[in-house]
Formats: sequence, C-alpha cells, structure tokens
Amino acid sequence: MKFSELTEKLGVVPQSSLLLQASCNPNLIGVSALEEAQPQTLSYIEGDKFAAQLQTTAASALILPMNQALQTQATDRQIAWISSPEPRLLFAQAIALFYQPFRMAPGIHPTAVIDPSVQLGAEVAIGAHVVIQPGVTIGNQVCIHPNVVIYPGVQIGDRTTLHANCVIHERTQIGADCVIHSGAVIGSEGFGFVPIAEGWLKMEQSGYTVLEDGVEVGCNSAIDRPAVGETRIGRNTKLDNLVQIGHGCKVGKNCALAAQVGLAGGAQVGDRVMLGGQVGVANQAKIGNGVQAGAQSGLHGTVEPGTVLMGTPAVPFKVYVKASAIFGRLPEMHQALKQIQRQLGNKPK
Amino acid sequence: MKFSELTEKLGVVPQSSLLLQASCNPNLIGVSALEEAQPQTLSYIEGDKFAAQLQTTAASALILPMNQALQTQATDRQIAWISSPEPRLLFAQAIALFYQPFRMAPGIHPTAVIDPSVQLGAEVAIGAHVVIQPGVTIGNQVCIHPNVVIYPGVQIGDRTTLHANCVIHERTQIGADCVIHSGAVIGSEGFGFVPIAEGWLKMEQSGYTVLEDGVEVGCNSAIDRPAVGETRIGRNTKLDNLVQIGHGCKVGKNCALAAQVGLAGGAQVGDRVMLGGQVGVANQAKIGNGVQAGAQSGLHGTVEPGTVLMGTPAVPFKVYVKASAIFGRLPEMHQALKQIQRQLGNKPK
Amino acid sequence: MKFSELTEKLGVVPQSSLLLQASCNPNLIGVSALEEAQPQTLSYIEGDKFAAQLQTTAASALILPMNQALQTQATDRQIAWISSPEPRLLFAQAIALFYQPFRMAPGIHPTAVIDPSVQLGAEVAIGAHVVIQPGVTIGNQVCIHPNVVIYPGVQIGDRTTLHANCVIHERTQIGADCVIHSGAVIGSEGFGFVPIAEGWLKMEQSGYTVLEDGVEVGCNSAIDRPAVGETRIGRNTKLDNLVQIGHGCKVGKNCALAAQVGLAGGAQVGDRVMLGGQVGVANQAKIGNGVQAGAQSGLHGTVEPGTVLMGTPAVPFKVYVKASAIFGRLPEMHQALKQIQRQLGNKPK
Repeated sequence: MKFSELTEKLGVVPQSSLLLQASCNPNLIGVSALEEAQPQTLSYIEGDKFAAQLQTTAASALILPMNQALQTQATDRQIAWISSPEPRLLFAQAIALFYQPFRMAPGIHPTAVIDPSVQLGAEVAIGAHVVIQPGVTIGNQVCIHPNVVIYPGVQIGDRTTLHANCVIHERTQIGADCVIHSGAVIGSEGFGFVPIAEGWLKMEQSGYTVLEDGVEVGCNSAIDRPAVGETRIGRNTKLDNLVQIGHGCKVGKNCALAAQVGLAGGAQVGDRVMLGGQVGVANQAKIGNGVQAGAQSGLHGTVEPGTVLMGTPAVPFKVYVKASAIFGRLPEMHQALKQIQRQLGNKPK
Repeated sequence: MKFSELTEKLGVVPQSSLLLQASCNPNLIGVSALEEAQPQTLSYIEGDKFAAQLQTTAASALILPMNQALQTQATDRQIAWISSPEPRLLFAQAIALFYQPFRMAPGIHPTAVIDPSVQLGAEVAIGAHVVIQPGVTIGNQVCIHPNVVIYPGVQIGDRTTLHANCVIHERTQIGADCVIHSGAVIGSEGFGFVPIAEGWLKMEQSGYTVLEDGVEVGCNSAIDRPAVGETRIGRNTKLDNLVQIGHGCKVGKNCALAAQVGLAGGAQVGDRVMLGGQVGVANQAKIGNGVQAGAQSGLHGTVEPGTVLMGTPAVPFKVYVKASAIFGRLPEMHQALKQIQRQLGNKPK
Repeated sequence: MKFSELTEKLGVVPQSSLLLQASCNPNLIGVSALEEAQPQTLSYIEGDKFAAQLQTTAASALILPMNQALQTQATDRQIAWISSPEPRLLFAQAIALFYQPFRMAPGIHPTAVIDPSVQLGAEVAIGAHVVIQPGVTIGNQVCIHPNVVIYPGVQIGDRTTLHANCVIHERTQIGADCVIHSGAVIGSEGFGFVPIAEGWLKMEQSGYTVLEDGVEVGCNSAIDRPAVGETRIGRNTKLDNLVQIGHGCKVGKNCALAAQVGLAGGAQVGDRVMLGGQVGVANQAKIGNGVQAGAQSGLHGTVEPGTVLMGTPAVPFKVYVKASAIFGRLPEMHQALKQIQRQLGNKPK
C-alpha cells in the first residue's frame, strides 16, 4: 500500500510537501520495530529519546510525535512521515491495516465432545478435543480453540475467544467480546480453608465468577470463585499473564493489571486502576479509582482514588523515589549517627 | 430449610427467645455474602468492624461472633442468629448444607486413552480426552477431569480429584483425598543445570515427587521433582494458585501457602507454616514449624519455629511494621543528619 | 555397576589405595541425596558444611570436593570416594549413567489431529490428542506429548520436546534441542493496549517469537509475541517454571532465569545473566552480560555488565547486605536522631 493510501485510511493529513516528492510516497509492505526495520515498512517513534535510532532506521515511513526536530530529521533522511499527538495509538491503527490475526473458521471439529444440552450460537468455531459439559450456553461467533474444557452450566457471550487449553469452571459467566488466553483458568475453587484442630476444614466455594464484556485474561492466569457472592472483573479490564485473582475480588472497569499481579481474597479495585508487574494487593484491600502502583508494590488497607504509589508497603511514588535512593546510604547514616552520639556523650546502642 | 432445622443440623443452640418468634424462624434457601445478601439467605459476621453492614444487610439469618452488641443489633433488626466463637468455621459447615459441589459421575469417557497396563480402582470417573500412560495406578473413586495427562508409572490414591488440563509426571505419587486444580503440573523436571564452559550441563532429575494424603494444589501451580531423593508435600497441606515448589523441597503437614509463593530448590518448611502471597523462600532455607510470613516476604537461612515475620529480607513482624513506617521518612532523616554534621563540624558525606 | 567401573566411565582416577580394598569397591545400584541415601548408592558433597552428614550417610560411595579432611573422613568410614574440583558437575554425569529419563517411542497416536499440510520430520513421536494446525513444520526426532496444541505456521527444530498441555502460538519458531515443559505457552499475544477515551484500543501483535537452539522453558511459563519485531530467547538459555517474558524482550545466550521471574515488555537481557526467583525487570530495561540479581530484586534502566545486585530498586549486592541489615534498626535510629535534634535545639519534625 502506498504511504498516501495509508494516511488516507488512517484519516490523517501527512506533511504535504513530502507527499509531493515521489521518493517520499513509498510503497509499504508491513510494519516494523524501529531498530529492526526493513525498507518498505512503517514504524513509529514516541519521543526525543529515539532520535539516535531515527538516524539509522531503515524504515521507509514513520509515525512521529508533534516534534519539529524529529520531523526535520525524518525529512532530511527522506523518510515519509505523519505526526500525531498519540503516535502509539496511530501505529496501533496502522498495524491493523497490514495484519490480520489468525481466526478459526466457523465449524465444529468432529473430535469435540459437546453435551447435547449445550446451546450453541450461530457461526461458532469449536476446535479439536474441546470438551463442553451439560447446560453450557455459547453465544454467536464464539471461538473456542483446541483442548479447552468448559465445566457444566457456564455462559459465554457473543464473539468471545477462548484460546487453547484454558479451563472455565462451573458457576462462571463470561461476557461478550472477551479473550481468555491459553492456559488460563476461570472460576476455579477459591482458597478457602478454616483452621481446625486436625488441620483444615474446606469451605465449599458456592459463589459465582463473572467477567463483564470486553475483559481479557492472560495466559496461565487464574481467577477464583468465592464461597458466597461473586468474583467480578469489570467491563474492558485487561489482565496480563500469570495473574492471580483471589475469591470474591471485585475489579472495576478499564483496569490494566500487568503480569504476575496477585489480588488476595476479597480485594476491591476501582475503575481505571493500573498495577505494574508482580504487584500484590492484600486481603480485603480497597483500591480507589485511577490508582496506579509501580511494579512489585504491595498494597493494603484503603488506597485513595488517583494515588500513584510504589514500594512495599506502598508509599506515594515521589516519596518512594527519594526514600529508596537513600536506602543504599543507610550504613553510612548509621555510622554518622553513632559518631554523633559518641561526640555528644549519648550512648550508641 | 427452616432456620431451626439448620441450627439443629449444625448442632448449635440458637438464641432461644428468637426461635420463639415466628418471624425469626425464617425459611432459608441459600447462603450469601453479607453485602450482597438476598432475603431468605444465611450470612455471617466475623467481628465488630462489620457492624455497619449488619445494619443494612438483607440476610434473614446470621452467624455472629460471641459479641453482645452485634447480637442485640441483629435481634433489633429481626434477623435470626446464632453465635459461635468461630463464626467462619460454622458458616463453612452451613454452606455444605446448602451447596453440593459438582462431581463427575463414575464412568470412563470413550475418548479417554488409557493404557491397558493401567490399574483402575472401583467407581473411578475419567473424563473426555484424558490420557493415562503405562503402569499408572488409580485408586478407588478417583475423579479425573477432561484433558488431564498422566505420565507413566504414577500412583494416585483413593478419592483424589484431578481437575481439567493438569499434568502429572512420571515418578510421582499422589496420596488419598488430594485435589489437584486445573492446569497444575506435578513432578516435572527440576531446574537442574550445572554451568560449564559451553553453557549448561543438564542434571537429569531422577528423584521422586510425593504428595501425602489430603494435599491440595492450586491452579497452574508447579511442583518439581529432584535430581535425587524426593520433593515432598506433607499431609493436609494446601497450596494456592500459581505456587512454585522447587526440586527437593520438603513441606510439612497442615501448611497453607498462598498464591504465587515460590520455594527455591531444597527449601525445608515445617508443619503448620503459613506463607502469604508472593512470598519467596531461598534455596536450602529451613523454615521451622508454625512460622508465619507476611505477603511478599523473602525468607532465607534458618527461621526459628513460631516466628512471625515480614519483609525482604524478613524481620520480626513488629520490627517490620515500625521500620517500614519510617522508610518514607528517610529523606528527612538524611537531611537532619547532614544538618547536625554541619553543626558539629563533622564532614557530611 | 562396580564403583571402579563407574569411575572409569566418568574418566576419573579414584583415590588408589581405596580401590585396593575389596570393601571399597562397592556395587552401586543408583544415586541418592546425601541425607536419604541407601547403601549401594552414590551421593556427593559440595563442601565442608556437609561434614556432619558425611558422618551419618548410608551412601556406599561419594563424590567429594578437593578437600583432604572430607577425604580422610570418608576413608575412615570405609566409603569409596572420588574427588573433583566440581563435584556437582561430576555427580550430574554420574546420574546419567544410572537413570534414563522417560522418552516417548516414535510414532503418531491415532487420536492426534494433524493437518495434512503439516511437514513432519523423521522419527517423530506425537502423543494422544495432540493438535497440529496447518502449515506447521516439525523437525526430526521431535517429541510432542499428549494434549499439546500447535497453532498454524509454527516451526519446531530437530530433537525438541514439547511436554503435555503446552501451547505454541502462530508466528513462533522454536530451535533444535529445546524443551518446553508442561503447560507453558509460547508466542501468545503481547499485552498491548493503548488507552483511549472509551477504554483500551487493542494493538494487534503482528511480530514473531523465536527460541534459539537449546532453550528450555519451564512449566506454565509464558512468552509473548510483540506488536512488531521479535521476542527472542538466546541459545541455551534456561527458564524455570512460571516465568513471564513480555512482548519484544530479547534474552541473550546461556542465561538462567529462576522461577516466577518476570520481564516486562521490551526488556533486553545480555548473555550469561542469572536472575533469582521472583525477580522483576522493568519495561525497556537493559541488563548487561553476566549480570546476577538476587531473588525478588527489581531491575530497571541500564545495568552494567557483570554487576551483582539485589533489592528493589536493585543496588550492588554488598550495599544491599549492609543496608538491609540496618533496615530493622530504623526505629532506633529515628529515636536517636530526634534526641540529638532536641539536644542541639534543632526542631525535630
């Protein structure tokens, strides 16, 4: 596709003088990462710090931020470009013009084992060796990859995709337009054990698990169902790989939880919350709307809406940066303090 | 079931005056979480901090702690109640009166691939597409959900359940009354590589993996087998989701390891140990009986029995609480110290 | 096998006087862990700290370090022994003389679903219920255990093993002599979402995932493919269980990443890097060759080659040891500082 055609499809006006140069309306065959770009591909740059790579990239076209220095640099290198206040967003739209993700064709593989009581929507795609147990309801255009197991009574909304080898347990409802990635387990029994003299009494997990529309769950993540009530993941919330959602958690809408995050039982997370990788949220914690926590943070208690925090236990991000910078100087502080104590005749401990 | 029938089955005496009121012997149709309760359901309260929710809950009956204020409050709201020193334990018993977890019916699905040499106990349930390889022994009333794979020579004890898509590797022995949740992998090769000039020499993992009776292993957890000797999980120990047990670890009886805990190779954990979410235990560490470690702690070396600790590296819990409260004040401490050094003519570094 | 035969096969010369004693050329039937050893087994000792166990072990033969005290002790106990500067390496070689790991026999199970377009090498072993989709290429002597799912177009090199229930996604190339352990997911969609007013725009993941020769990926680990470019794991790098490799990461050769390590998107890791359990590496971080990071560390930015570090944020290991030892004394330092401020008439905050 010609660069001019691309910009038209993206609905953006390219830097007009460039378009007039024949050499700057390149033919594009794909998208690429800046450092690994081949000629005839489109790449993108998010800001100044990539200026050095702009000087060497072999990409024929670029999406740039609204940055005149970068624009001039690209023009000088005879690279076709468009600018956007959100280059990453525009690049995401451009990828979709070049790349069609793999989708299973509708149809039911003969090796799938589907109970006669299962209700199947229109145009479903069900792969080899899938197992769907009694009473399950599957919406229209649902795509279920091979070796998925669905326990009895589950409901799956329209256009949802279940990737290979994931497991959906009983008492689970998955909305429309969700994606459950390979190996994820949804609706499994919560970790409910009451200590007794002989060991543990198992608390049966009689509650429900609900994923609202547009939720994505990463590979090998686990979402547990509670003893009573619901575990609920709000609309359009995205969970990365290897995330743990304990029994009875409520996660709001439009959240993004990075890989290996763990929410202990009963944690409540508001809308638009962003948790970095390996963050832990304690039992019964309440995390307000819009909270952002840096990687490996530990959150507990109540976190006010809009807070940006980091560390274990988490403190405001700016405090964390200053305090952790001093952590490595603790030994010298300790020595200095002891010296002062001696000078003043205080007894150093 | 009538409230009076419930209390009889639970073997407890309800507050007698309430039972005499017709309005306080409600018909109960299920159990519920306090905040989400519907009428005609039973819920429970663990302590004072839920008093506000007691004021608004729609539950018709409650299990209360031995707390007169809460009891009076419930009576005033015409909610039937029973009190117990362990309300959560009693509630767990009540759930089991209302809820029967899903169990597969005995029988072997025709798509299961079972080697002729496999020994099957009585009344086993084996789901679709299960694969059981040569020399495996399966006890009585064992339940194996769809798409489970069992490698050669494994032994599975009576009444054990293997949920969908879990994998049991060779040289593994699983006791009676165990539950292996979906996607868990038991007895896989330990991470044994010896550095050599060209990279790594793989150390073959010729040992065994043993799960004693009553062990539960959470979804997508992994338990490795060692080069020599055993990896062993003691009787009635419960592992949550996404837990890693390295090769050669010994975990005692009646432990509870929360989600995403990781035990490095050769770690030894005593009886009744409780590890919070994301705790890490170092290679060859020795954790005494009854140790409790807070979420995200890092344990190494020898931890004395009964210690309650937190942090990385872990310190006694009380020390951790005080020290971490000061962490955020390090910058001001650092400034104050420099000021004093200047006042005293010491050279601040 | 006789001890003398073992030492000959290992190419090492045993302490000669011992060999002359009939009692010290024991017949060996296996290998064992030092503490759990049975008679007629070979075990090994890495250093002085195991001297007490050498006094009680029932092993009939030992691999010792170059340590005269331990050698004398073994001789006194009439235990046959050989010494090596690398006893663990020699023991790894000895295990391989006694233990043959389970390997599937070549052949294709009739329940496997293999698209006619798939190219299969010679002597492949394909287990029950495996699903291999169109356009896949499988090398010679590849071993694919039951219930593995391979998405379209994947390439698998010679002698690679895929353990049960793992999933290989489209746009993935796995080299020769790799091992993918049970439940691992390779080449799944990266976590690419761009925030927009209505929630998130999904960035299609059109890149590739490449595992070079000799890579191992642990159970239930996940390796994502990027929007553009490659995710790449270098030759002979070993990943333990439950590891997360984000989209677009580049990991060098001969690395060892312990269990539950997480690499955020775009992280670059050099050669011979060793990361302890639960280490996190931030988005776009650059970790130099030979870096070693202790368990639970958090790495970000640029880490110089050869650095040994620990903590979150990570500091040089020696600094970490000293600083973390003082962490528990922060409360008393804080008190002492306030006292000095009062003495000097400074205003304690």
